[in-house]
Order: sequence, then structure tokens, then C-alpha cells
Amino acid sequence: MCRLVAYLGKEVLLSDILVKPQNSLVLQSLYAKESNTRTNGDGFGVGWYVPEISTTPALFVSVAPAWNNQNLLHLTKKVKSSAFFAHVRAASAGGVTQYNCHPFIHHQWMMMHNGNTAEFKKIKRHLRRLLDDDLYDWVKGGTDSEHFFALFLQRAKTRDLSQLDVVFHVLEETIQEVLALIQQYGDTSTQKASFFNFCLTDGKQMIATRYCSDTKLEPRTLHYALGREFVMHEGHGVMQEAIGSPECILISSEKLTHSDAAWTVVPPQHALLVTENMDVSLRKLK
Amino acid sequence: MCRLVAYLGKEVLLSDILVKPQNSLVLQSLYAKESNTRTNGDGFGVGWYVPEISTTPALFVSVAPAWNNQNLLHLTKKVKSSAFFAHVRAASAGGVTQYNCHPFIHHQWMMMHNGNTAEFKKIKRHLRRLLDDDLYDWVKGGTDSEHFFALFLQRAKTRDLSQLDVVFHVLEETIQEVLALIQQYGDTSTQKASFFNFCLTDGKQMIATRYCSDTKLEPRTLHYALGREFVMHEGHGVMQEAIGSPECILISSEKLTHSDAAWTVVPPQHALLVTENMDVSLRKLK
Amino acid sequence: MCRLVAYLGKEVLLSDILVKPQNSLVLQSLYAKESNTRTNGDGFGVGWYVPEISTTPALFVSVAPAWNNQNLLHLTKKVKSSAFFAHVRAASAGGVTQYNCHPFIHHQWMMMHNGNTAEFKKIKRHLRRLLDDDLYDWVKGGTDSEHFFALFLQRAKTRDLSQLDVVFHVLEETIQEVLALIQQYGDTSTQKASFFNFCLTDGKQMIATRYCSDTKLEPRTLHYALGREFVMHEGHGVMQEAIGSPECILISSEKLTHSDAAWTVVPPQHALLVTENMDVSLRKLK
Amino acid sequence: MCRLVAYLGKEVLLSDILVKPQNSLVLQSLYAKESNTRTNGDGFGVGWYVPEISTTPALFVSVAPAWNNQNLLHLTKKVKSSAFFAHVRAASAGGVTQYNCHPFIHHQWMMMHNGNTAEFKKIKRHLRRLLDDDLYDWVKGGTDSEHFFALFLQRAKTRDLSQLDVVFHVLEETIQEVLALIQQYGDTSTQKASFFNFCLTDGKQMIATRYCSDTKLEPRTLHYALGREFVMHEGHGVMQEAIGSPECILISSEKLTHSDAAWTVVPPQHALLVTENMDVSLRKLK
Repeated sequence: MCRLVAYLGKEVLLSDILVKPQNSLVLQSLYAKESNTRTNGDGFGVGWYVPEISTTPALFVSVAPAWNNQNLLHLTKKVKSSAFFAHVRAASAGGVTQYNCHPFIHHQWMMMHNGNTAEFKKIKRHLRRLLDDDLYDWVKGGTDSEHFFALFLQRAKTRDLSQLDVVFHVLEETIQEVLALIQQYGDTSTQKASFFNFCLTDGKQMIATRYCSDTKLEPRTLHYALGREFVMHEGHGVMQEAIGSPECILISSEKLTHSDAAWTVVPPQHALLVTENMDVSLRKLK
Repeated sequence: MCRLVAYLGKEVLLSDILVKPQNSLVLQSLYAKESNTRTNGDGFGVGWYVPEISTTPALFVSVAPAWNNQNLLHLTKKVKSSAFFAHVRAASAGGVTQYNCHPFIHHQWMMMHNGNTAEFKKIKRHLRRLLDDDLYDWVKGGTDSEHFFALFLQRAKTRDLSQLDVVFHVLEETIQEVLALIQQYGDTSTQKASFFNFCLTDGKQMIATRYCSDTKLEPRTLHYALGREFVMHEGHGVMQEAIGSPECILISSEKLTHSDAAWTVVPPQHALLVTENMDVSLRKLK
Repeated sequence: MCRLVAYLGKEVLLSDILVKPQNSLVLQSLYAKESNTRTNGDGFGVGWYVPEISTTPALFVSVAPAWNNQNLLHLTKKVKSSAFFAHVRAASAGGVTQYNCHPFIHHQWMMMHNGNTAEFKKIKRHLRRLLDDDLYDWVKGGTDSEHFFALFLQRAKTRDLSQLDVVFHVLEETIQEVLALIQQYGDTSTQKASFFNFCLTDGKQMIATRYCSDTKLEPRTLHYALGREFVMHEGHGVMQEAIGSPECILISSEKLTHSDAAWTVVPPQHALLVTENMDVSLRKLK
Repeated sequence: MCRLVAYLGKEVLLSDILVKPQNSLVLQSLYAKESNTRTNGDGFGVGWYVPEISTTPALFVSVAPAWNNQNLLHLTKKVKSSAFFAHVRAASAGGVTQYNCHPFIHHQWMMMHNGNTAEFKKIKRHLRRLLDDDLYDWVKGGTDSEHFFALFLQRAKTRDLSQLDVVFHVLEETIQEVLALIQQYGDTSTQKASFFNFCLTDGKQMIATRYCSDTKLEPRTLHYALGREFVMHEGHGVMQEAIGSPECILISSEKLTHSDAAWTVVPPQHALLVTENMDVSLRKLK
């Protein structure tokens, strides 16, 4: 069901986060620990911001498994960024093609998803009707995730996403709208749950949700770590404690290090909001 | 703009048609002679019938160029069939992904396309609305070709496609319907032409069109050769003359052999119909 | 460390063996049960004989994981054969490229390997020196497996491989020769073991070894099932009991079915020999 | 026969050199103008230096054609560098695998090749014998180019490559050594020529050769342009004239712009040497 990592803060070498830690995302692609889906080998993606060149992030995706991909190893060793997403995929909705690899990018916005949308096949055409021509054409793949992002972008058209508060509200509305579509067009007798762990960023601020439409079920795992800097210490990744305000945040499906100390669980049905000034807050989702 | 080959008749080794001839489809992928688009390197596909196993054809597609693909070379040397399609792609609408490789398959039907649909971006969502849920979901890629095929299948739902005459009519209606969508939703000021060279088969009968919506323009090239057997003779492919009725037909964007004698041009705005008994006729398209 | 399946006997649809069984090779690519290496996602290969066309087998390999490969699903549903190999790879020696996918083919001979050669890096150049120019050039990849096969072919040059007994001896000699190379050029202080589960066939007869150079260690798993026909029964694969002599044999790293009854373990340090007449015998390896 | 571009000097966005010019390398992959081999669709590679992170260059290679590769488009738009190589391949020696994509990297050194080595098959095993174990193992693919680079590195072991003059001499010696191997082990009756357009850099200095072993034949094309900065002007790439010393150099198989003015041909049998201070000189090769 996919695994993901998001980072915001002090510039860092991508491999220090994605490759070197004991339970790095690259290792999770082969053997995830906090998920029943062990193998996330149906492609991967990395998106990172290079603010001095463009507001649009760079993107590298592949349908190959992450664990043995030489390009991924090479690139992450040579790229630093202060804002990036990475994702390893276990295909559910949508086949194994580069168009179904996360993260998805639209201008300065980047999104990725861990989870699934119940009855997506049944609601897909109805969801697409809600999109303007530009966003209808923008969708290139077949995943529920990309379609969700398109609907979010549609809702955001008349809104000011430079306000993190607004981002939260549009995201919450999009979730509600998708659930309403499931209610209307899905098979209500089966009552399947949707799992919505989303990460969204514009390279400056970030938001991550941990959500399941059925509150009796556990949402997919999601943790975060705040600190001064994520460094390798005696072969182990360590999030150094911040002196004063935190300087970076790491959001991850799985704890990347053996030490539990640094990691905090995002509570179910909550969004984690991170401002440009690294102010972090939790907000309950409807 | 793609190149294609279709074969029906006496069982033949695929490589004898697709690889060995002087101007084989595999060579056309690298250097097409009868098209302004020289290189058709954005993937390929081969579909062939194995009637003793299934009415659905076998399919092998790849986003790699055909000219250096070892699997293609290996397979075509070891597979015989009495009905097959092969296609090399130069991507126009739809990116380079396996879902955009021709031929497309739906139950026993197989289709491929050389050409393009004017204003496809503008009509896509309107065309999709005409599809029932099953065909809406069946579409996996983003090409105009696959969407055209879906619309054909939609129109065919209440028709008896075992009659070649009916296949012709449904195909003609689908062409007209797509042209009507362009008229209604496209930008009429630009007046771009659509090029519709389609091949369709159920493994028994075959139909191939050579069509341009603007009759003042030359449609894409299309030839056919009828005979007893296509054989290699002194290193050259030769369609042997039939003794009595022909036993096989080769339909191809380009003449596969240097000799012109064997090849007949499909006239513009016509469909070539081939029955199970190898009766061949031309029919004018509206 | 890879998983493999070999089949010889009555013609069968490839998907009945490779895809449909409860613990099929395709499923083992994602989640192997009898190996510490759970995921075998670094490519796969299938080779099968089509005797009416050629003595050389057909080959289809890919660096993509088997579990979600559409071409593999399509092909195995449409190909029948009376002799075939299939292999899913977890890369050890040699990177993820099509040249490192098993099985390997040389004229009518086909080979695949589950295991590894200790100190391969150290012996590789010395092994290559033992090859004539033709076999030196024939090697395309970097695996110990392909190099082993090349050495076997070198040794076989003056021998009559139509005699299964000779095949056994050449194989045994090749194993001994590789072990001698390790002894001579490897780091003797580390004393690493080599694991040599090989399958070899010419499409008529077959041989499979289960071997570890260190007799105190358990070789990789290897089972076989003999019977009349492997069929699906109420959704479960079943090897039907032979009436009289067996008509087919299935050799597999893992039991493909839940039922243990049909399966026999190949004893450590043994080779399983299967003649053209389906005479099956075990022979102790030095 | 491949096409290549090398850049050294003032930091520039990779896409400004590799994608935007009228005759960019990406376009040459589809339709080269100064070569009989029109299509260079058998993979590509880009290597670039990020001195603030590492002396080893970053590397991105793919077996897909460059012309439609989304990762290449995305990356080159977001990466700036002051030293990089890019290469599009038409496979001659060595199949289509990532290990045969140029450039090749060894510590801080990077190499690429346009041309071919006569009788490579015949000399390969003899060349490999000249390599120490470390370089023998370092070779991953099957191209003459990578083997040439390995031999260069072998010769360089006892030399000080920080001196451009030394690099030139080692390169010249390697060429002579390979030609001697051809003389000794090749089929002298055929007298085939070798084409050696090599580019070599450590990210600071650069050397490029234009060489054919048969002086009666024209070597592969090679041009260079010196200037202050390569910029886009009214949709056309322009190398701006230097005010005083040049600040960058572009070395390319083909002129990247329509304007001939900026481009100088590297004379046959010469090496172009570029120092860290952008001193440019030509040196005759034996």
C-alpha cells in the first residue's frame, strides 16, 4: 500500500534521508516493517525543490523497484534540497506505469498518497466530471491518488493556497467530496473504508494527513520527527535535538531509525501542518 | 505516425513477416520509407491468435524501440500464427507507456491505428461520456486510438460482429461519430484533418481502412499483398502467386519487399475487407 | 537467492504451472516461502521449447518484477510447451540487466541456477581464461550462473550430451572445477560455501542438482512432483497420479501446491536425472 | 555511432545546452544531421559534477531513447553544473543495457566515446588481461568504450592525471596500445579503421579527441565553441562572445545552433585540451 517520506527544513543530502537510515525508504521498498504489504516494488518517485532555479520541483520516477535502482542511488548522493518527497509503490488502483508513480506535480504543488479510495472504479468518471478541461487533461495516469489531487486542485482554483489554513480546508473538503461520491455512486452494501494519508507541499509549507473513513479502523501508519538536523552517527541515523525552534521535520510512513525517542505518531483523523517558519501543529479532520 | 502490419491466412512464422523482409516492420521502426516520420521508436506491440488455446489473442508490447529488442526477436522466431497484428509507434497523443502501445485487445477483437484524431484533447471527455462503465474502465491509456476502439466496441454492443458487413458499418459509424464530436467540440477555425488507418480483426476476418477526413489530403500509406504464401527466396521476401484462390493476405503501411509487383495500394477513403474464406473486397467509406 | 521451476512431459499451458498454483512462481517473486530471501523482484525469465519450429528454445526475459508483468501474464496464457524453465531473480552477483536474467540459452541447451558461487569475483577472470573465444564472446552478462554454464559448455565440447549420463558427468566435473578455482584463487580464510542448484535441459531430457559445497549446510530447497498431468481442481493445482509410468515432471524450488503428498525432496548433494522416456533417477554428486 | 556533448565553464542549466538548442543532443537522438547513423535511440546518459558535494560526478543513464524521456526533461530543467557530459547511443558493440550507456565514471573521472574499435571482439580478452583485478571488476558492460576507459585507467595508475599534459599522453598511449592489440590479434586482412572520439574530464579540466586510425578516412565530426556564456536569444541558442578570456567551452559531435560562426572544427587526429583556467589548445595525436 505504498510507503512515503517527506522532508522540510535545513538543506540535506537526499541519500542521508532516503538511503542511509537503518529503515530507509529504499529498504522499505523491499521489506516494509509497519505494513502488511511487505514489498513496495511497483516503482518509485522522488520530487525535490531547487528554489534558486524554479518554483516547480524536480521529479524523478521509475517503474523499477527502488531497492536496486542505480539512478536513484546516484542521484540521491548528489542532490541536496530543503524540501522533498519520496514514495515507493505497491500498485493497487492503476497499473505499473510511470504515470502512476508518486509524487504528482502541478506547478509548485506536489502530492503523494499512501492508502486507497474505496470504490474508486465506481466514482472515477463522476469525479472526472467535476474537473475543468485543464485539470481533466492534466491527469495522465489511472490512480485514485492522482485523481484526488486533481480534485484538490480544482477546489483550490478560487482559493489562496499560500495560507496553510486554506490548504487544510481545501484538503478536508476534497476528502469529504470524495467520500460523498463514494456514498452516492459506490456499492453501499460493502462499506469499504478509504485510507487517506496524503502529503502536500509547495516547497515552503507542508501538510500531511493520517485518516481512515472508518473511525473504527486504524489508519495507515504515519510518524514525524522534529529537530535541528538529521545526521548519521556511528552508522545510525539520528535526528538531533533542536536548540530552540526545530530546523527540520521528517514525516514518514515508518520510523527510519531504531530509536523510538525521536518519533511522534500522527494521531488518527488528523493533519499535521508545518509552516514556512517550521511551526508545527495538529488539526482534527472531519 | 506509426507503421503497422497485419496478416491473415496460412500459418506463418512471425519473424518471416516482421523481421526478415528487406523493409520489415522492425526496420521501419528505425527508418520508415513511406512516411515523413522516419523513426517509430516509442514502443511496439504484437498480437497473435492461437485458436487452439483461446479466442483472445496473445499480446506482447514494450515501450522499448523494436529495432533492438531481444524479446521481440526471440519470440517472433518461435511463434507461428494464422492471424496477427504488429505495430511500431511514434508517439503523438499519449505518452510512452505500455498502455499506449498498439494493438489493443478486447475479448476476441484486436485493433491498431496509424494516424491521428484532430482535436483529440478537446473531444476526449465527450467521447468518454458515450462509453458504458465497462468500456470506460477498460480504457487504460491515453491514446486517441484506444478511445476510438472503445467507441467502436460501444457501438458494437447491440450488433453482430460475426458479419464482416456489420463490422464495416459499425466502423464507418464510429468514424462519423468521432468526426461529429470534432465538429461539435473542436476548434473549427483550424480545420485540422484526421487520419484513420485502422486494422481490426477477430482472428478470422479482417478489415483495414485508409482514410483522411479531408479528401484533398493524401491519407497515410497502406498496401496489401495477396498470394499463396509469403516466403524467403534468395534472401528476399516474396509473396508467391496464388494458384486459384489466395491463401493469405498481408496488409502493411509500407511495402515490405523491393518488388512492387506483389503490392496493391488501398485507395483513399476505402476499407479493405477480408472474409474468413479469404474473399477480399474494397468498400468506399463515407 | 532466486526461485525456479522446470517442467518436462505432456504439453501444458505455461500459466497452469507458473501463474495459477497457490504458491506459483509468480507469487514466489513477491513472497517466497521456502527461502530467507522473500522477494525475488530483480527480473525473471521463461524459456520454452517449440520442437516443431526449432531445437533452440524461445526466451522471454525482463528486468521487471514478475508479479505485475502484463507480458508474462499474457504470454503464459497463450503458450503450451512440453519442456520449459522459469526463473525469478533476487540479484546477487551481477546487476539488474536483461543479460543477467535466467534461463541462459546456448543452441538447444538451456540452464538456470538458484544459489551462488563463493568468491566469484576472485575466480571470474581465471574461469574466463578457460573458455574458447566462441564461449568467451557468448557470455553477455556478469552472473556466476552464466559463467558456470559457459564452463559447462566448454567442457562439453568434446562430449556427447545426447547421453544424460554424460551430461551428469560434465556437470559434476564443472562443479568440481569451479570449486577448485575457488580453492586456488579465493580467500581460503573465509571458507564461504557455494550453492549449486542447477537445472539443465535440451528440451528432451533434464537434470537438476541440489548441492552445497559445505556438506554441513543445507542446500537451497528443491522438490519434484511426478504424475500424469498437472491440473487445476476446485481452484487448486493438483498433480494427478500417473497410471503406469509418469507422463510429466515438475521440478521446483518450492512446492507449488499446499498438498505435500505429491512432492518429493531432492536429497542434498544429489542430481535428479530425467530421461526422454520419463525415467527418473537420483545420482549422488561428488 | 552515437552523438555527444561536453561542457566546461560557467555554471549553466543543463537543459539550456542539452534540450533547448535548435539541434540539441535530445533532438540528435531522433535525427542526427552530421552522421550517417540518423537515430541514436539505444539509450543515453548524463553525468555532471556537483563540486560542493563530491568530486565524483552524478550520473543518470537510461536504455530508453532520449527524445521522449520525461526524467531527462525534468532533471535537465532543474540541474545546473559547471562541468557535464551527455551522450546518446546507437548501439554497435554491446547490447542495449544500462551498463553500456555512456558516460562511464571512475572516481572523479568521466569518459564518453563516439566511434568504434575495429576487431573489438578479437582483442577484448587480450585487453582485459592487461587490467588489474580492481579495474577488471570495475568493467560492468560490454562496450569497447568502457574497456578503452579501463585500459586508460590502468595506464594512469602510476601517473599524475592532475596534469592535463599527462592525461594527453596516457590517452595517446592507450590509443596506441589498443591499435597494437588490433594489429596483433585482429584480422589484418580486413584493415578496418577505428574511430576514437573520446571526451575525458575530472570536472576541472577536459580533453576531447577526434581521431581515425586510418588517416585517409574522415574521423567522426567534432566541433567546439568558446565564449562567455551560452544563452537563448529569441528562441535560438547563442554562444556569446567572450570579453577577454573565454568563460566556457562547448564540445559537441554536431553544431548545436544554425549559426556556423561560433563553431570551430577539431582537426582530424587532434586532441583538444582545456585547462582549469579555460586555456584551450590543440595537440596532434600520433
